[in-house]
Amino acid sequence: MPPKFQAPTGTRDLYPREAAQRRYITEAWRSTSAVHGFEEVDGPTFEHLDLYTVKSGEGIVSELFSFQRFGGEKTYALRPEFTPTLARLFAARANALPRPTKWFSVGPYFRAERPQRGRLREFLQWNADLIGDGSPAADAEIIGVCVGLMERLGLTPAHVRVRTSNRLLIRDLSIHCGLPEEKADAWLGYLDGESKRSDAENTAYLVHRGVPLHVRENFNALLERIKTLKDPSTFSMEDFGIRLDTVDRHREMLTILRSMGILAWCQPPIDLRVVRGLAYYTGMVFEVHEATGAERAIAGGGRYDNLVELFGGPPTPAVGFGMGDVVLSLVLGDHGLMPGDEALAELAGLRPRVFVVSNGTPEADAAVPSVVAALRCSTPGHPGVHARRSYKATKNVGKLLQEAAASRAMFAVIVESGSHATVKDLRTGAQDAAPRPLSEAVTALRATAS
Amino acid sequence: MPPKFQAPTGTRDLYPREAAQRRYITEAWRSTSAVHGFEEVDGPTFEHLDLYTVKSGEGIVSELFSFQRFGGEKTYALRPEFTPTLARLFAARANALPRPTKWFSVGPYFRAERPQRGRLREFLQWNADLIGDGSPAADAEIIGVCVGLMERLGLTPAHVRVRTSNRLLIRDLSIHCGLPEEKADAWLGYLDGESKRSDAENTAYLVHRGVPLHVRENFNALLERIKTLKDPSTFSMEDFGIRLDTVDRHREMLTILRSMGILAWCQPPIDLRVVRGLAYYTGMVFEVHEATGAERAIAGGGRYDNLVELFGGPPTPAVGFGMGDVVLSLVLGDHGLMPGDEALAELAGLRPRVFVVSNGTPEADAAVPSVVAALRCSTPGHPGVHARRSYKATKNVGKLLQEAAASRAMFAVIVESGSHATVKDLRTGAQDAAPRPLSEAVTALRATAS
Repeated sequence: MPPKFQAPTGTRDLYPREAAQRRYITEAWRSTSAVHGFEEVDGPTFEHLDLYTVKSGEGIVSELFSFQRFGGEKTYALRPEFTPTLARLFAARANALPRPTKWFSVGPYFRAERPQRGRLREFLQWNADLIGDGSPAADAEIIGVCVGLMERLGLTPAHVRVRTSNRLLIRDLSIHCGLPEEKADAWLGYLDGESKRSDAENTAYLVHRGVPLHVRENFNALLERIKTLKDPSTFSMEDFGIRLDTVDRHREMLTILRSMGILAWCQPPIDLRVVRGLAYYTGMVFEVHEATGAERAIAGGGRYDNLVELFGGPPTPAVGFGMGDVVLSLVLGDHGLMPGDEALAELAGLRPRVFVVSNGTPEADAAVPSVVAALRCSTPGHPGVHARRSYKATKNVGKLLQEAAASRAMFAVIVESGSHATVKDLRTGAQDAAPRPLSEAVTALRATAS
Repeated sequence: MPPKFQAPTGTRDLYPREAAQRRYITEAWRSTSAVHGFEEVDGPTFEHLDLYTVKSGEGIVSELFSFQRFGGEKTYALRPEFTPTLARLFAARANALPRPTKWFSVGPYFRAERPQRGRLREFLQWNADLIGDGSPAADAEIIGVCVGLMERLGLTPAHVRVRTSNRLLIRDLSIHCGLPEEKADAWLGYLDGESKRSDAENTAYLVHRGVPLHVRENFNALLERIKTLKDPSTFSMEDFGIRLDTVDRHREMLTILRSMGILAWCQPPIDLRVVRGLAYYTGMVFEVHEATGAERAIAGGGRYDNLVELFGGPPTPAVGFGMGDVVLSLVLGDHGLMPGDEALAELAGLRPRVFVVSNGTPEADAAVPSVVAALRCSTPGHPGVHARRSYKATKNVGKLLQEAAASRAMFAVIVESGSHATVKDLRTGAQDAAPRPLSEAVTALRATAS
């Protein structure tokens, strides 16, 4: 095939197997959202470029699929994330929407990165956001729905870790460590990229931005001290030798996570090296990682209390996260938690219930389409039965029954004439002693799936 | 809000109500596909532009969202249709795939048209294709799954019409009417746009392309004659005064549609004014329209026997169709067939089962998050229960129970202390005579939804 007919770099062709795996994940996203009381919303797949340049920061903008359409004048971007769209949606109807509003969405997102393990240029993402409640309980609820998804897919604290942090807490502690207040953004930017730079680059980064090097020394010493706490989830202000509201706030969230029974997922319960790159986060941030650190982040999010106002709404606290399908699939695969093809087909309703076979007479051949159609038929009281037939030219009933069994159908119906048929249960081998009227066979088989 | 923060022209912001309506349609698409034995596939949301310029024809290319990414070199297009991607997918694995292969897909598509009723720049589309079988039975099966979807949504032949046609039959009949063979493409192009042009434009179109005007006269006379047939679904070659394989073939398809019980949807059963704009169709084509002609086409498709080969596969017959969500939603709305908000919420699992209320004591307040989490918790044997709680500051149990009822929850659980709770059935008003242990209440409520 000429290369020009291949899928673009970093995108995926999904055959039935991969599509069923993706469906398994999106169904888990949706049902978890519903159980936790989130309602679905969505926005356009592409947006005006301005939506992302305003507040997401360079981390997003440098990876944007931004473009002008040939023959068009406006500048668009394929959406790299959902949060700006969500803030716009809420801002536009802020007066009519309840506090909190709990929304989720599932759809395709795009980043023009170099493709590598866990990173594609097109991927699916699940977003869940709680808007209009600024409490630590709201932070905990967002972490809770994220953990709920992992539970549903069979993941445990042995497989994955939730790393919670708080930008305000980092900021306050860093000021306590000697950080000049006006250098806070530079310092957070430093922490976000620290693990990706060499030691020399890291030092140059700080010097270049005028952040005193003793801030790093003191901050690292503080992190070491946190590690020595007996139970970091119950740390007190005194443990830090300082009095800070942000310490209280984070501990309150951890207390709620404990009462929700999910503190075991957050070990250690505070990880102040997590900063999150996006510029709009204003408080609690968190990431979910494979426990051994084998893959990229599975999910990430945090509190963004200024974004709704930025898009024209009233001041509104908000917290949420995003989870992509690519790393999640890798982690499920790594731990043998992706169901096999047959189980996935069953979940998606793709296992046939009935396979319709002709006995080879012209009358039976002619009746097959009507039997298949009658089985599949959807009525207000019945969704229809998944029915298949052979497309082979053979008239050998034995071979056709083999094909029926290979399709994993539960029943075969052998059409014996224009008016009668024999039903065979392919799971037990039991078969009608004598042919019965076609309509009776259809009714009986539809009743097995109502 | 500044205009730059609005959704791009022709795209949609979907709030929970619109998202639930869209979900109702996509679920019907998926379950109909499964019942008819189609497996899911998908491709990238954007493709190399070449994929569309090769064979889809000008009808598609002029409406493409094509672009080069800022800073990139390759030329892409947001996908306007699925068929070229599908042909590529099949061609790449043609040797390993069964004959026929039956695939469906659901996803976003894009056309840079002027937005108007029934036409948006971004929309969802369902595709179903049967690849590797060139028989009239395959044509009938594709029409069958399309009709199956309409049935499932409550539509009837009184609401919508399937207009079937065949490009080869039109071509053969037109040659019989005096069309020079080498003018066949020009003539089909004429027919496709005939209803959108004025009489003078139509005549100029034919003259400009060297199509003799008597072809149109003879063809129109032939169509009038077809209308006078007693039963156009059983027309014979003699009815046309000619012998044509294509006549036989279309009649055979209609015979199968009759035996499937869906010929009532195809009235008249042959409509030779339907041509379909896309250049790759090679035989049977069809469109679905609102019966009164009130809206644009709901769905359209046909046979494309050369496309797989064009993308590097072996010669492979194929037939399929696409159905968008925009016109379908309008038609459902026109006929009062879109379920109400409460019914949609129920279908999507968004009706809460349990609303958790505190009796106002500090111990009960502190226990609420754990009760909510225990209800929602997903285990291998249980998907979790949709549970909510109040975010209001009030401690008034009566007001909280009102909020529970307003949420349409089926049960309320009133947490009475750190260890006990009272369960109330909000549908009947029945309530526990005395508080029971929290764990017992949670187990009982989870059992109502397992």
